[in-house]
Order: sequence, then C-alpha cells, then structure tokens
Amino acid sequence: MTNDRLFFASDYMEGAHPAIMKRLAETNMEHTAGYGLDEYSERAREKIRAACNAPEAAVYFLVGGTQTNATVIDALLRPWQGVVAAETGHIAVHEAGAIEFGGHKVLTLPQRDGKITAAQVERCVEAWRQDDNRAHTVMPGMVYLSQPTEYGTLYSLEELEALSAVCRSADMRLYVDGARLAYALATPENDVTLPDLARLCDAFYIGGTKCGALLGEAVVFPKPAIAPHFFTIVKQHGALLAKGRVAGIQFDALFTDGLYGEVGRNAIGAADRIRAALVAKGYAQPFVAPTNQIFVALCPERAKALSERVEMGFWENLSDGRVVMRIATSWATTAEDVDRLIEAL
Amino acid sequence: MTNDRLFFASDYMEGAHPAIMKRLAETNMEHTAGYGLDEYSERAREKIRAACNAPEAAVYFLVGGTQTNATVIDALLRPWQGVVAAETGHIAVHEAGAIEFGGHKVLTLPQRDGKITAAQVERCVEAWRQDDNRAHTVMPGMVYLSQPTEYGTLYSLEELEALSAVCRSADMRLYVDGARLAYALATPENDVTLPDLARLCDAFYIGGTKCGALLGEAVVFPKPAIAPHFFTIVKQHGALLAKGRVAGIQFDALFTDGLYGEVGRNAIGAADRIRAALVAKGYAQPFVAPTNQIFVALCPERAKALSERVEMGFWENLSDGRVVMRIATSWATTAEDVDRLIEAL
Amino acid sequence: MTNDRLFFASDYMEGAHPAIMKRLAETNMEHTAGYGLDEYSERAREKIRAACNAPEAAVYFLVGGTQTNATVIDALLRPWQGVVAAETGHIAVHEAGAIEFGGHKVLTLPQRDGKITAAQVERCVEAWRQDDNRAHTVMPGMVYLSQPTEYGTLYSLEELEALSAVCRSADMRLYVDGARLAYALATPENDVTLPDLARLCDAFYIGGTKCGALLGEAVVFPKPAIAPHFFTIVKQHGALLAKGRVAGIQFDALFTDGLYGEVGRNAIGAADRIRAALVAKGYAQPFVAPTNQIFVALCPERAKALSERVEMGFWENLSDGRVVMRIATSWATTAEDVDRLIEAL
Amino acid sequence: MTNDRLFFASDYMEGAHPAIMKRLAETNMEHTAGYGLDEYSERAREKIRAACNAPEAAVYFLVGGTQTNATVIDALLRPWQGVVAAETGHIAVHEAGAIEFGGHKVLTLPQRDGKITAAQVERCVEAWRQDDNRAHTVMPGMVYLSQPTEYGTLYSLEELEALSAVCRSADMRLYVDGARLAYALATPENDVTLPDLARLCDAFYIGGTKCGALLGEAVVFPKPAIAPHFFTIVKQHGALLAKGRVAGIQFDALFTDGLYGEVGRNAIGAADRIRAALVAKGYAQPFVAPTNQIFVALCPERAKALSERVEMGFWENLSDGRVVMRIATSWATTAEDVDRLIEAL
Repeated sequence: MTNDRLFFASDYMEGAHPAIMKRLAETNMEHTAGYGLDEYSERAREKIRAACNAPEAAVYFLVGGTQTNATVIDALLRPWQGVVAAETGHIAVHEAGAIEFGGHKVLTLPQRDGKITAAQVERCVEAWRQDDNRAHTVMPGMVYLSQPTEYGTLYSLEELEALSAVCRSADMRLYVDGARLAYALATPENDVTLPDLARLCDAFYIGGTKCGALLGEAVVFPKPAIAPHFFTIVKQHGALLAKGRVAGIQFDALFTDGLYGEVGRNAIGAADRIRAALVAKGYAQPFVAPTNQIFVALCPERAKALSERVEMGFWENLSDGRVVMRIATSWATTAEDVDRLIEAL
Repeated sequence: MTNDRLFFASDYMEGAHPAIMKRLAETNMEHTAGYGLDEYSERAREKIRAACNAPEAAVYFLVGGTQTNATVIDALLRPWQGVVAAETGHIAVHEAGAIEFGGHKVLTLPQRDGKITAAQVERCVEAWRQDDNRAHTVMPGMVYLSQPTEYGTLYSLEELEALSAVCRSADMRLYVDGARLAYALATPENDVTLPDLARLCDAFYIGGTKCGALLGEAVVFPKPAIAPHFFTIVKQHGALLAKGRVAGIQFDALFTDGLYGEVGRNAIGAADRIRAALVAKGYAQPFVAPTNQIFVALCPERAKALSERVEMGFWENLSDGRVVMRIATSWATTAEDVDRLIEAL
Repeated sequence: MTNDRLFFASDYMEGAHPAIMKRLAETNMEHTAGYGLDEYSERAREKIRAACNAPEAAVYFLVGGTQTNATVIDALLRPWQGVVAAETGHIAVHEAGAIEFGGHKVLTLPQRDGKITAAQVERCVEAWRQDDNRAHTVMPGMVYLSQPTEYGTLYSLEELEALSAVCRSADMRLYVDGARLAYALATPENDVTLPDLARLCDAFYIGGTKCGALLGEAVVFPKPAIAPHFFTIVKQHGALLAKGRVAGIQFDALFTDGLYGEVGRNAIGAADRIRAALVAKGYAQPFVAPTNQIFVALCPERAKALSERVEMGFWENLSDGRVVMRIATSWATTAEDVDRLIEAL
Repeated sequence: MTNDRLFFASDYMEGAHPAIMKRLAETNMEHTAGYGLDEYSERAREKIRAACNAPEAAVYFLVGGTQTNATVIDALLRPWQGVVAAETGHIAVHEAGAIEFGGHKVLTLPQRDGKITAAQVERCVEAWRQDDNRAHTVMPGMVYLSQPTEYGTLYSLEELEALSAVCRSADMRLYVDGARLAYALATPENDVTLPDLARLCDAFYIGGTKCGALLGEAVVFPKPAIAPHFFTIVKQHGALLAKGRVAGIQFDALFTDGLYGEVGRNAIGAADRIRAALVAKGYAQPFVAPTNQIFVALCPERAKALSERVEMGFWENLSDGRVVMRIATSWATTAEDVDRLIEAL
C-alpha cells in the first residue's frame, strides 16, 4: 500500500470506528455471559428499541448480511412461500444461493434504480391469486427490500408506506435489509426514520459491518411474535456468536452519543462533495444515488488511469463501451481523502 | 458482578487475549481487501500452513463452531451420505439441527468419555456394507471427532491414526472439530500435534473463539482438492466475513511468537492446579479430563453453596443424586483466580 | 420362477387385489380432472372420512410410504423442531435420510418390540424442557409411530391414548405411519380402530401399497387446519400424481364393501396358521408379532435349506449364531400357499 | 359428464392405454422383487437402452414429472451450482419450488416460444466467468430443457446439438424433460430422435404419465457414472416405488411393438387435423406449436361458448382482451372426438 493511493473501493476496508475499538478494549477483560445474554448486548437492545420507538421489539445481533438475510427469511417464510425481491436484490444475485439453500425461492421483479414498487408487488400477488394453478406455484410470502438499495438509491417514506400497505393487505411480511442503513439515515433527502421502519416493517436489520463496526448486524422484529424460536433458528444457521458481546458492545457504542448518525453523516458529507465535483467536472453519473455510493461512467482508458491512483469498485460495462465504477465513502473517509480524490479526478 | 465472585463457567467469557486486541487496534485504520483476501489473512494462512507442516493446505477463516461444522460437513458429504459422530458430539446435540438443516443425517455411535473408536467406525461401515438394504439407508461418508472432546478428553495419536486408517480404507472423510484445540495441544499427556492432524485428517479446524480470539475458527484442508468451491459454500452458508481481516489478524497474532501455545498452557497450568486441589481435598471427578475442563461431582447442597462464590457450568445430574459441575479455565485465568478457587473449594 | 417356489418375502410382491384391478379397468377410458380433483378421489375421501368417523378430515392420496412420511413430517414440523421416533422406526433407518433432506432431525428413542412408550416421550420432552441449553438443541415437535410397527407389533388403545395425551399436553403432533394398517386392523388382539386413530392422532396414513393397491397411501388429517397449504407441499415434494385418480380409484375400491378389512383378514388368517405351525413344530419366534409378519430364528443351515424352497426376508443375525428370517403374508396369500409352507417347515 | 361433452383439456385425463392395462392385468398375480429389481423393469430398461442406442445407459423409473426433475437435478448439481432454464420452464414456475426445496437456484433466461438458445446459455456462462464476484454467485451447472416445451414447441436437432456443445465446453450438464416426449417424437417436423437425446444429453426422461401410462417416467443416464448412488437419491426423494414393477410393466409395454410411437402418432394426427381446421376456419393460433398442444386465441364470449361444449385448458389472457385456450390431444383422442370438435369450432 503506497502512501498516495486513495481507497474508495468499498465501505468495509478498514477496521472499526475508533469509538468502537475503544469500547472493545475497555471491556475486554470483563466476564460476561455468552450468546448475547450479556449486559452489553442487552443495553444495545434497549438503545435500539428506543431509537426505533419500538419498546417491545425483539433485537438480535448476527454477524453478516447474507447470514442475516438467510436467517430472517427462513424464519418468516413458511415452506410453501417465496420472497419477492428486485432482480438486482442482494439475495437474488450475490448470496451464492443462500436463500435457496434454505429451501426458498426468490421471486424476482424488474427493478428501476434498484427499487421495486408497491404496484409491482400488488400485481405479483394478484397474478398469483388469479392463477388457477397457484397451488402448483410458490406463494409470494414476503417482500425483501434494501435501504439504501444495491444501487445506493433510497425508498421514500411514501413508497415504503405503500409497500407496507400492500404487504399487510396481502398478509405478506415486509423485510428491509439495512446493510448500509447509517448512510440512508444520514442522507438529507431521506425521509424514512428508524421509527418508520419499525412501524412499517415486520423485520429489518441495522447494518454494522458496513457502518463502522468490525462486524455485526442488528435484526429488529418490532412485533416479536412474528418470529418464534428465532434464537434457535439463529443457532441452526450457524449465526450465533458464542461471544455475543462482540456484537453487543459494538452496537452499544454505535447507539451511544449518536455515533451511528455520525458514521453516516461523515460518509454522506464526503460523497456529496465528490458528487458535486463530478458534476462540476462533467463526469456522467448513470444512476441518481444520493447515499454513500457514487457511480461514474468512464471510458476504459480513463477508468484505467484513474484506477492507478484510486481504488474503486468495478460496477458494470455499459453497452456504449464505457465502464461504470463505484466510489464508496464511509465513516473512515477523511476530508483529505476527498480533497485528493477530487484533485485526481 | 461482585469483586470476589470467581468466573470458571466457560472459556469464552472475556474478550480476546491482549496481544490480539493490540494487533486489532494497531491495524485498525489500514485499508485492506475484503472477504479474507487481505494480507493479514494470507499471512495467517501461511503461518498455519507452516505450523501444520502442510504447505499446500487451504486455510479458511470462519466465525464460529456450529457454522464451521455445518459448512465443512456440507462441503465434504455427498447427498447420500451422513456423518458419523459420538452421541455426545457437538453436532449431534448442541447445534440446533444445523447438520440436518443442511440435509445430512448424523449417524451416532455410543461414546466413552466422549470418544468413539476406530473399531466402532469399522463396525458401522461394515454393517452398512453388509446390509442388503444399504441403498435404502444413509451411507457413512465421514467421521466427526472433537479434540478435545465435549468431555474434555483427548484422542491419542494411536487412536487418531487408527481412525484415520479406517476412514481411508473405507473412503470416508475424517474431520476434527478443534474448538478448544489450543487446550489439547498444551496438555502434557497429548501426543497429537498440528502436523499429525494435517497428516491424518481431511479437514480440521483450529479454534479461535474459545482459545483467545474474539471470534474465528481456522479451517484447514491439507489437500485442498477435497473441497472444491469452498469459498462459495462458505458464502452460501452465510459464513463469509466481509471484513475477513477481523479473523485473519487474530489468527496472525495467535500464530505469532507462539501465542496459541501460550493461551493453551495458561489454561492447562491452571486446570492442573485445580485438579490437584480437588484430589487433595477428596472431591470426585467423574471423568478423566486432562484439558481445560474439570468435572466435579457434588452433592446438591455443596454445589449450591459453591456456586454462590464460583460461577461454574452445570453439566448433568447423576443417578445417585449428585450433580456434576464443570470448571473451565482459559487464557484469561490468573494464578490469583486459581488460588481463590482452591481456597473456596 | 418355478412352480413350487413359495413366496413369503414381503407383502408387495404382486400387483393389486383383483377387485382393484377390475375398477381400474372399468374406469380406464373415463375423463376426469387431474391432481386428485376427480370424483373417484372425492368418493374415496368421503368413504375414508366415514370409516374414520371424521367428517371434517382432510384426506390426500400420495404414492409411497417414504414420500408420505417426509411430506407429512415437513408439513407438521416447524424449522426448530424434530420428530421423535423409535430407533428402529422406518424414518430413522430405511428412508435414506429423507427426513434430514427436508431439514429435520429424527430424535430416536430406544425401542422394545419396535415400540416406544408415552413415558419415554414424556421424559424426552421433560429433559428438553429442563435443559438450560434447550435453545441450542432440536425441540421435540412430533411423535412418529408405525402401526403395526416395523417388527409387526401393535400399539394397544391404552398405549396410543397415553401417547396422544402426552403429545397434546406437550403441544406435540402425533403421527402414525400405517403402511400396513390393514393388517393391524384385522388382527384379533388389536383394539385400535380407524376412529381411534382419527381421534388420537394429528395425522396418520392408511397404507395402500402394502395392503392390496398397486400403490398409494391415504393421508388423513382429522383437523385439516393443522396442515395449511398441504396440496402445495405435496407438489413441492414431487408427491402429487397428475392422474390422481389412479390412487383415488384404488382407495375407493379398498373402502367399498369392506375390501380393506378383507385384505387384512386374509393375511392375518394365513399368518395365524403359520404361527401355530411354528409353535407346533418347535420353531423359535424371537418377537411376539401378531400381525402379518412372522419372525423365526433358525440356525444358518436350516435357514439356507428353507430358503431354497421358500422366499423369505432376511431380518437379522442373532449373537448366538442364529439368523432371524421374516415370513410375510398378504391379501395375495392363498390357503394352498400356507399349506405348502407348513409342509415345508 | 354428459355424453356430448368433448374433452381436450389435457393429455392425462384418462387412465392408461389399453395395451398397458392388459399387461398390468396379465401380470397381476405374479411374484416379483420390489423397488424396480423385477424382471419387467429390467426388460423395459433393456428396450429403452436399445431404443436409445445407448447400451450402457442407466435407466430408472420414477413416478411423476416434478419428482423426476427435482431428483435428477439434485443428483447432477453440486451445492454451489444452479440450473439454467427458460423463465417459462416447468421447474421455474409450476413445481411449487421443488428445486429450491432441494437447495438449488433456478437461473432463468428469457424464452421465445418456450425455448432458450445455445447463444443465451453461452452468454450466461460467460457472464458468470467474467464476473469478478462470481464466487459470491450461483454457478450455472446444468441446463434444463423440455422437449416438447411447455408451449408445445420443439428444439431442432441443430439447436440441441448447439446447446449440447455449449454445455460440454462449459462442463455443464444437459438435461431434457420429456414429459410429453412421445408427442415430440411423433411430430413430422421433429428431427430429434431418442439416440440423439442419448448422444447429446447427460440425462433425460421419457415421459409416461402424459403419454399413455397410468404414471411413470423413465430417466435415462447415457453415461451412468454421472449420477452415483442415484438409487439412494431416488429413495431419499420419496420417489422409489415399492412395487417398481408398476412402472416397469408399463414401460415394457410402451416399448413393445412400437406402442410409444403409436401413442404419439395418434395424438399428433388428431392435433394436425384440429390445427388445419382452425386455419381453415380463421382461428388465430398465437404460438407455432406442432405437437399435441394447440393454442387458440379467442374473444372471451367465444371462449365461454366453446367451453360449454369442449373442455379445454385456460392458458393466458392476452393484452388485447382475447384469451388463449389450450387444446390437447393424446393417445386417447378418437377420430370421432376430433370430428365433433371441428364441428363445434
């Protein structure tokens, strides 16, 4: 790693936010119960319940995103049901078939900017209901969204309320993957809060791994009865931490003194400066992504040249020959990093 | 937690060995690749290969024991095969059906001190082969052992060589769960080394979570060809860490300057002192367990009284009315803890 | 096949009872709906409901025993539950891991004459409830019995009522595999009727394949709400017959004019004559099996000699060197077959 | 069922071809081994091997289509692989998630007339190979086709050869679902023979249920080594018939004296007459389907009126308000049925 190389490839390239590392160090020699029954985990649960305005919510700490998605989806679906997702949804593409490994089909819908709509879900449910052969098909049993989406875009409160209403009227579960939720919450145009998620969803997770923790995702079931025996299902999925405190201490830190908000704001502030610079310098952004991921379309030569200086993520090839690269900011991005990136652009 | 309470309930009640915490802190702000492709993980792999005298081994870092067992067993078994284990094996009892969730049967054998023998495995295979209806049954496809066992006992090199020979002649895989392997390796009477495991097994894991790490288990396949596409299987099981370095840095530390050995020796030294004190004071130990777990049979009143002072693990009720309690030492047990425990006994 | 060879190897060695073949032939060119929605299937369902005194029961026709067991067990268990069975239960041994393929553990109990008791189930449930680590283990969620058992023995009404009571008080399902149910029902000492099964069980199946049909098993859910979307689960298990009438017509025939009873009585009459002859001639019967399966312990030479004349099933080797052979009668066994067998003995 | 109602809803509305019923009746009281080890099954296997010009092929008899697809796909895929299919493929839509129940993802491709092309498969494989994140995705491991397709269309020999070549060069399996294969083979424009299938595919099945049998599908593995322990996998899927002869006798009959060809030709002859009448009378056929399924687009009133006289299958609603109905012929369709249908049109 040379000194002048810039790192914008993703939001999980460093360790943890220093405030988290500090808490892990301070508590290191304390004795606690295992499996998330320790007081730090309990404290983190309380803080998350408060932040979500969901005093009765059940909160569980798992390790990573794919694991969390597979475990929650298996817990909420019955055997004859599948999960509806955008064709670009993480569970549909980048989880190596983890949902199918658990026995469930992902029912994909076409996406726009990584999102699906209430109307699409309604048509999907209606088509299933009208199908004379529906008993030979997989029943749509829940909807999976990510906020922000895999394209860095956001569901508005209005969109989420419509999706929630469709799910409730169709007796389907609504589940939101919040791997990068800190960045959604910190985006100025976002109008979906944690209490909104708790009010509108049957389950969601508050991402830790990509939002400043070493690892960890906090699953929230606003109404715990929806997921009976979830602890055992977590264990069965190999998702139970023996030292559950490792996640608990981190989420306790993230929900103390507004750290989760700070993590998000740092990344969004940096991303907004980069987006402004891209616009100013005439770069093309193929998607309107307001969160911590910025997509830029470059000719191959430019992409190559820039990549020598800046570590970015490859996103996709466009049909016109250009390549889309992803620039991601995080809690760890400094003002100097952004200055230097803008200079390099 | 009062100041004079003593903690011997298990070996995963604290955070991580200070040397590990130090390395996590030192490396915290470095940028690295995700998913275990970082240089710390690679360095840890190299050190493990060297320690195992297995230069071609594939090494993967997973998060926890149940997850590791389920992932490795799914990877090594074919659909028509099951895994042979002691009826007290962790996979048979305490993994919430994780192996069956992956579609495989655990074929249990009676145990003695938590162990099974080559002769038992041979009879099991032979019975399957002689069975006219064997095509209607689950074929024994691999053997699962734990070293030390769930009872804290050890397989000797001779026993392990016999088990390995039976497995090889029957074309079965041999897999060793080393959740507490540091404690086995540090036990004076142990004669099974890491190179022995690499020579005799098709797969084994070197436990981190219970041996001084915050979390993490290092899976070793001495001959990588046995587990094709294991990375994808890990991902499919939700067992892939985005920040793979979190495990990599810890194992790098554990295999630097003999730390893994030191972790084990501290626990065994403490356990040996406790065992000697138990003998001297006339306590009954129902199993001969030479590693970091000590089992003591107490009358209920004595167990209750002692539990007020010392946090121990409940193990089982004996038919004579006594209760067996487990005392576990770890890398974190201090000489003072042991002094005070002996005094309390 | 020579003329003088005698066939007592099993009860599925011929086609179907002639009355069934006649009905299949008579109805062959009629047009009917598929997937069990035809009038013959509906008629058979009505007759089974009447025979079971269960007017609200849901009845489904599946193809074979392993398929039926796997489908019903998957439908009745939740992901965190397993099925309790005798260690000799068909699902535990001879279904090639079909239950585990569906993701569930078979929790085995020691058996006596192929049976388990209410007290054993109660202790199993109680042990789970008392276990501090129960959330790490598989919860017993249902009990699987076979009537008659794999050893040809019978549960008495008293035993079944006790098992049912334990299951209900523990909120467990009770499921009875009736692969050979006709033979149980026709045994003089049997006191468990179809209405008893409907009253005491959550699900059971009335065997066709081994009781005179070409194939087919009738699953009965006395209270249909227990198995929502069962049709889809059947389809998902590949257990849905396109020409559902093939099973429906056969069960319609079996439950017309007492054919199911006749099938059973023929076999039991033959078996009773054979048992009496064995006693008269001093043969040893290792199990007391009053149904259509007769077990006889022979020295190897005698077994070999007899096998040349009579096709029997090998059951097991005894530790004293003798071999246990199984003689099975069926709806197809004639009085002459029995005469000749007795003569051959 | 009134006398003048006409039945063209599907090809599985009657029992079995009379020649099959005759053989079942003739052999009914014979004693045979179970589980497909009887001489009729063996004879059928030999005839199928001969018809396929595949003397070394392994042939297994299963019960129905969904079951066969799920069992074969599970047998041929490894855990990290999925099966590529047309988005309209039976496994993708109408099997209630049976493939996902077995743990595998169906990777769908857009279809044209129910078909996918070698070029599509090649692009799919190439996209996977080029994907830097491919280890996080499901690897395309086999291709599923149906011949004829769900739309009654046919793959030409050229198309199948191209698909086979792509599969072989990509080390993917090629599997053909022949639920209605008799009708493909009997279609004049078809140029794909059984020996072609055996030469080009890794597995295919010769449909019985929809081609004149009561039930049964014959799976052919031209090279048996591709599916080790398939018998046990069949058992594990609940797909093993105890009275295997029931399928064996039927396939023996279907492959004796050209019955399978006759079954097909009767249906195709009838379908061709109906298609000609539809053209002559100016009906619109939305798909070019040359086999035993005929699709006709009708205005809703006409569809309703015709349905009162003729039982047809509903296929789909068109965006212009018309409804597509399916007319299916079979081995059981008589010349008089066709006359009366044409008259009714």
